[in-house]
Amino acid sequence: MRKLNIALIGYGFMGRAHSNAWRQVRSFFDVPFEPVLKIICGRDETAVSKVAVKFGWQEYSTSWEEVVARRDVDLIDICSPGHTHAPIAVAAAQAKKIIFCEKPLANTLGEAEEMLAAARANNCLHMICHNYRRAPAVSLARELISGGHIGDIYHYRGTYLQDWLVDPNFAAVWRLDKAKAGSGALGDLFSHSTDLARYLVGEITEVSALLKTFITERPMPGGQGVAKVDVDDAALSIVKFENGAIGTIEATRYATGRKNYNRFEINGSRGSVAFNLERMNELELYINEGPESGFKTIQVTNKAHPYIKGWWPPGHIIGYEHTFTHTVLDLLKAVDEQRLPTPNFEDGVKNQRVLDAVERSAQSQRWESV
Amino acid sequence: MRKLNIALIGYGFMGRAHSNAWRQVRSFFDVPFEPVLKIICGRDETAVSKVAVKFGWQEYSTSWEEVVARRDVDLIDICSPGHTHAPIAVAAAQAKKIIFCEKPLANTLGEAEEMLAAARANNCLHMICHNYRRAPAVSLARELISGGHIGDIYHYRGTYLQDWLVDPNFAAVWRLDKAKAGSGALGDLFSHSTDLARYLVGEITEVSALLKTFITERPMPGGQGVAKVDVDDAALSIVKFENGAIGTIEATRYATGRKNYNRFEINGSRGSVAFNLERMNELELYINEGPESGFKTIQVTNKAHPYIKGWWPPGHIIGYEHTFTHTVLDLLKAVDEQRLPTPNFEDGVKNQRVLDAVERSAQSQRWESV
Amino acid sequence: MRKLNIALIGYGFMGRAHSNAWRQVRSFFDVPFEPVLKIICGRDETAVSKVAVKFGWQEYSTSWEEVVARRDVDLIDICSPGHTHAPIAVAAAQAKKIIFCEKPLANTLGEAEEMLAAARANNCLHMICHNYRRAPAVSLARELISGGHIGDIYHYRGTYLQDWLVDPNFAAVWRLDKAKAGSGALGDLFSHSTDLARYLVGEITEVSALLKTFITERPMPGGQGVAKVDVDDAALSIVKFENGAIGTIEATRYATGRKNYNRFEINGSRGSVAFNLERMNELELYINEGPESGFKTIQVTNKAHPYIKGWWPPGHIIGYEHTFTHTVLDLLKAVDEQRLPTPNFEDGVKNQRVLDAVERSAQSQRWESV
Amino acid sequence: MRKLNIALIGYGFMGRAHSNAWRQVRSFFDVPFEPVLKIICGRDETAVSKVAVKFGWQEYSTSWEEVVARRDVDLIDICSPGHTHAPIAVAAAQAKKIIFCEKPLANTLGEAEEMLAAARANNCLHMICHNYRRAPAVSLARELISGGHIGDIYHYRGTYLQDWLVDPNFAAVWRLDKAKAGSGALGDLFSHSTDLARYLVGEITEVSALLKTFITERPMPGGQGVAKVDVDDAALSIVKFENGAIGTIEATRYATGRKNYNRFEINGSRGSVAFNLERMNELELYINEGPESGFKTIQVTNKAHPYIKGWWPPGHIIGYEHTFTHTVLDLLKAVDEQRLPTPNFEDGVKNQRVLDAVERSAQSQRWESV
Repeated sequence: MRKLNIALIGYGFMGRAHSNAWRQVRSFFDVPFEPVLKIICGRDETAVSKVAVKFGWQEYSTSWEEVVARRDVDLIDICSPGHTHAPIAVAAAQAKKIIFCEKPLANTLGEAEEMLAAARANNCLHMICHNYRRAPAVSLARELISGGHIGDIYHYRGTYLQDWLVDPNFAAVWRLDKAKAGSGALGDLFSHSTDLARYLVGEITEVSALLKTFITERPMPGGQGVAKVDVDDAALSIVKFENGAIGTIEATRYATGRKNYNRFEINGSRGSVAFNLERMNELELYINEGPESGFKTIQVTNKAHPYIKGWWPPGHIIGYEHTFTHTVLDLLKAVDEQRLPTPNFEDGVKNQRVLDAVERSAQSQRWESV
Repeated sequence: MRKLNIALIGYGFMGRAHSNAWRQVRSFFDVPFEPVLKIICGRDETAVSKVAVKFGWQEYSTSWEEVVARRDVDLIDICSPGHTHAPIAVAAAQAKKIIFCEKPLANTLGEAEEMLAAARANNCLHMICHNYRRAPAVSLARELISGGHIGDIYHYRGTYLQDWLVDPNFAAVWRLDKAKAGSGALGDLFSHSTDLARYLVGEITEVSALLKTFITERPMPGGQGVAKVDVDDAALSIVKFENGAIGTIEATRYATGRKNYNRFEINGSRGSVAFNLERMNELELYINEGPESGFKTIQVTNKAHPYIKGWWPPGHIIGYEHTFTHTVLDLLKAVDEQRLPTPNFEDGVKNQRVLDAVERSAQSQRWESV
Repeated sequence: MRKLNIALIGYGFMGRAHSNAWRQVRSFFDVPFEPVLKIICGRDETAVSKVAVKFGWQEYSTSWEEVVARRDVDLIDICSPGHTHAPIAVAAAQAKKIIFCEKPLANTLGEAEEMLAAARANNCLHMICHNYRRAPAVSLARELISGGHIGDIYHYRGTYLQDWLVDPNFAAVWRLDKAKAGSGALGDLFSHSTDLARYLVGEITEVSALLKTFITERPMPGGQGVAKVDVDDAALSIVKFENGAIGTIEATRYATGRKNYNRFEINGSRGSVAFNLERMNELELYINEGPESGFKTIQVTNKAHPYIKGWWPPGHIIGYEHTFTHTVLDLLKAVDEQRLPTPNFEDGVKNQRVLDAVERSAQSQRWESV
Repeated sequence: MRKLNIALIGYGFMGRAHSNAWRQVRSFFDVPFEPVLKIICGRDETAVSKVAVKFGWQEYSTSWEEVVARRDVDLIDICSPGHTHAPIAVAAAQAKKIIFCEKPLANTLGEAEEMLAAARANNCLHMICHNYRRAPAVSLARELISGGHIGDIYHYRGTYLQDWLVDPNFAAVWRLDKAKAGSGALGDLFSHSTDLARYLVGEITEVSALLKTFITERPMPGGQGVAKVDVDDAALSIVKFENGAIGTIEATRYATGRKNYNRFEINGSRGSVAFNLERMNELELYINEGPESGFKTIQVTNKAHPYIKGWWPPGHIIGYEHTFTHTVLDLLKAVDEQRLPTPNFEDGVKNQRVLDAVERSAQSQRWESV
């Protein structure tokens, strides 16, 4: 089988998830290329060398510049913090690599646009990792909507709720530092719900939004002194879609008891569909067919369902990590066919435009166009 | 037992619900007065006489003015459409009656304020029927919140979703006529979610909102010709509370599959609480107590729970109609103790101020103060 | 309207439930007779007189013999403990009354057969109150099964779980005394699950069963001394149906956390149906229609659903007590049409034969024919 | 790191699951050995060679005898059909290998005892793969029960429901052939529920059971002619435990709509615990602590929960396949410490004794001792 040499920048939570996806995809799917785990890159040599061994990367490096410069690398997978996305992606584009980048595309709209421009100028294939599109239940929702099963869409109701900041003693990690993370719940969670809205409903044209930081000072990581929190803890909005639908999108890290509650409900003229990431293998579907209608819970674990053929028999669930496995699978296929995968940097820019409008609206106290 | 003579204006859905409450309360609770079903009033003699027989009203009338004028009536219960609330309530106040009025208090803020002023000027006891406060699970939520069990509140997430307007052939009934109903989902559903927010979280100070009419023409009731729909089909908002909490409130009649989904979730620093009217006998509670925490479903059917002592053993659920039974029970007790019950016209006015701010915001496209 | 004079024997939990049903049925349904709450009967004069006032019974009595003898009584409704059913019912039959009797029909199969014989010999209309058949969701399940929607039935899985005996200090009330109650969970709960099995699946022909008493001594009610518990705490069985289906039926008062978990699941060749009394307004339905199948939750609150037309709009739930309201409604209709209602004493006898086989099997340690 | 050479016999559904576990365990856990995927064995060379490539086995073979004889193999993992377990395991024992065997241990009690004897006689470490013990939620249930949190156990209610045989045109695959599979739902599903009962409640001493084959003839695989089905489609039982608890255990392949419904509920004197494999990352827990008690849904995805430390942040679920990953992890640890892991062949034999008693009871129509 042909090989595709992968370089991964970043070895944290996302680095582990991507490592696993690259490593696992060929065991469960027919892939056009064997993805070779060529090199993993991170600043902390001890840490990155450990991940390299665990996941079977052939080499590791502490310099992303060197990695991007290597001729034996075909694809740069960017999993480092948001402020590093733009420089790495632009360099990778100039080096004519295939570029795969974690979301949000960048910390600012300007950087995101620069990344897209660089990828286009260098004719690179590019993809953004909005992995939840490829939870089988979400892919099925898309199929059902595209097939007209729920009719014209009236409402999108998206919430991404977590609770890890409720504890005031939780430290001011990099995700709470605007310089590194760009924003808080907005870029981390709201961007996911926005991507699902765009994927399933359509383009958002206007937003009215609110950003809130509940706890503005936290202990420094390591425990000496306190740090100001300069990102949002929660982002709330009402939104209008191009197609006439309306919606609410809310993201927070203060919803006590909600661990990873990335939920949406979409109401259309013929039916409704709902999803909750915490029960990732299920899709809730309502089709209006008279008095015996009801929301049904589809176990999206049937061979006929998206991506399931590679896995286990009905009712044997798959885990969170395979949303990444499915994403790299489709990326490999797109590379094979030399076509742009979706979502790509254009989607990343459009998503960023929504986030940007949210920030402007939170400032101006009025509706803002995207 | 002392008697209290009740007159009921209106015999539709709410008229039946109130009739039943007055009739049933003494069978299940110790009441300080025997409520006497004295007279029921409506414009359609055939219809009102039928309801009178069914629920055991001693008399019926087609003139609310005559009913209000009767000296043998102690309490006027107003269940007629919104545009009639103010004239009836003002007359009842002038006649020194106890006044019990369905929500929303009036079709406009001005009318609502007039009603409150009249009741105060005449030293009348007054109550507004926001019956969902007295679903035992909601009362329990209030107790838990007041007791500090969920800590400081960060988020309110209120939705009241129905789907009866999804069918474009559904006729333009009085609820879709601004002259009679005042508004659409806003006054009918959003007002409920607002009352629960005020009851459980606190006063709302600012709103940014959106009103939408999806289908603007519908068949006339009876079927000849079409009528313009001049009320909102859906009302969406983001809100700020006096105490620093933030929230979303959404009401719609276009959420296919949601029949009576009056749901809220409240997230606090120590826990969360959630409720869905379709499963009215249950309260969902999360208390942060370490890794073995989880949302639990409390069956609010225990003798120790609010209002349950009058009913059945644990696990034997009560129905929607008893939110009214509990409301009139507490009204009778307040009358007995000659004190103002809650919620009363003041709550009605405050609620109306929120609805008014929603309408202003939908117009101005920006945040509006309540 | 014609009147039907009702006499009610018993004023406890069931007495209150029946009182309410007789009182309420005409407010929500078109009835062929006005049920007159003529007289209620109980041994404790203070208590029975109180219930009489609360529910509006015209008279009360402490002698069932006198009540049965009255010529102005048309219908005897028996809600007293099991050991009194047979003498009252036989006397009522001899007095040519309509007889309505709580379940289980009697404490022994012999008594039950005697009651049926007496009713037949005197040409009385008779009905047993297996009220759960008339939960709208259960009636709907029956319609769906009869209509062939779930195909040939393979499995019945019935559990009736409560937990009120888990506390060892709970007193030895009459329900724990074999002389009065006949049996424990068997007659109280297992009989309900058996009736639902017979109603929805068909006749049970063989059982293998186990009866267990976990705590054999309890405090006397009132608190002086202890009493032996001589009834079963739990009854478990595997069963065979005439039509080839097989099942499990389990009843217990020791299922901590289960308050009134009268649940069944029925699996057929085309679909499945499930119900839980704690969520009485819902029916779970699975119809095999390919990969997008799933268990759906039907809110059985639509005007097209059984009994709902009399109640509220969709999503506005009804309570436990209305399973009785629907039962007396159908009894009134049967009286009007001079036909035997179902379930009647014949069903009571057949149910008792199952309970009898359970007791025999628990003794013999082998399968027993019904 | 030290290496442990693995040989896997079988490459079907279980072969894939075990391959994945051996391959993945070191990426997510600290393992005392690096498991080397040395050789995979199956009769169909084309098929087995394909699996070998997909999962990274170094070699493949079509002769288990040769594989067992290899000196460079440390551990024999048996995933082939039931009738081959005994010969392979006995040979592996004689070759002094570590033996890991899929459940049920064998097709008959005699074979199972022979396997245990061989392993003991040769001082081999041995383990049976009852993987569901190591679903984190099940491990947590065990911890809670062992810690006394639910008190003395009264009830076990185990069901393992699937529906893949409801279609009468489903072919007579090897699992429906007694010669190969030993039994039907009994060995395949009932054995899982029995293992969970033994793990969580204690030893079963007596059973009364029923075996049923609903459809006795099916198309031959490939489609020519029909084959008799000589295994059970469903197995139902009531059981008694050594410690006084009682239970029901049911397994079927005819529960339309249930895909992999391996569910148990355990009721104790202080609380209850319930689990459903289809929602494998959740544990339902009820602790009796007064009126505000309720079943809570614990997301067993917290670092403090069993096995989760190796995975993802809270709310990010893991899949079915990792029950195997956790099992081989513990097997590696046991090998490292030279101690017998659990469950082992002794558990396999005890499980088989229950299955044997079920078969005897189904025949004798009475209770049978285990």
